[in-house]
Amino acid sequence: MRLSLEEATKIAEKFWFRHTDSTIIAVLQDVETKEVLMVGHMNREALIRTLTEGYAHFWSLSRKKLWLKGETSGHYQIVEDFKIDCDGDAIVLLVRSIGPVCHTGNKTCFYRSYNDIVIEKDKEKELNAKS
Amino acid sequence: MRLSLEEATKIAEKFWFRHTDSTIIAVLQDVETKEVLMVGHMNREALIRTLTEGYAHFWSLSRKKLWLKGETSGHYQIVEDFKIDCDGDAIVLLVRSIGPVCHTGNKTCFYRSYNDIVIEKDKEKELNAKS
Repeated sequence: MRLSLEEATKIAEKFWFRHTDSTIIAVLQDVETKEVLMVGHMNREALIRTLTEGYAHFWSLSRKKLWLKGETSGHYQIVEDFKIDCDGDAIVLLVRSIGPVCHTGNKTCFYRSYNDIVIEKDKEKELNAKS
Repeated sequence: MRLSLEEATKIAEKFWFRHTDSTIIAVLQDVETKEVLMVGHMNREALIRTLTEGYAHFWSLSRKKLWLKGETSGHYQIVEDFKIDCDGDAIVLLVRSIGPVCHTGNKTCFYRSYNDIVIEKDKEKELNAKS
């Protein structure tokens, strides 16, 4: 979806940019599988660009700059729909991914489960026992 | 799911509590429908309690206190599973809801869509035209 600047501005007015560096929290969710792909922050400009250009943009808390997700990897996240929360400090973006979201190559940044950690822990124990 | 304190502590070590008030971002997702229900913050204690007691706890950024989701409403969020993101500053909790998550009575806090805002905008226009 791509909105006009007028519509995007109207929508931005609904938000409360109360988080670090005047941001909202943005949750990327796969429009088909409903899998949560990543969580990031958006300032007003990142939100407006996301809504008007149709590609997810974020505010990087570590680099202190605006970034288009996929600008180096080519793994753009195309926005198909969005939902705003009750107090306006978070957005869910329903996206179609052009390539994996995560810099590790995983489809989602949330690829580590309880089992992975337990197995990892057991591996550590094994290694410690052997050493 | 309810973990032992030892397991929960091990898991907490995987996180980077880098957000406001030394928190991570927690996304609640319905384990059945995969709908995103709410976004909140968890400090280390909220995370440990969530994992050991099996009910979602948060750190309130506005009230500056720990809270058990549902402590006044009875709408507890039972944790069935969780996923950790690549840089450890966010968690997805897959939950079974005992009653609606949102204080507005909606099943999810993300109940406002583009259409709602456009319709709301059109209603405003109508009202302005009439007045």
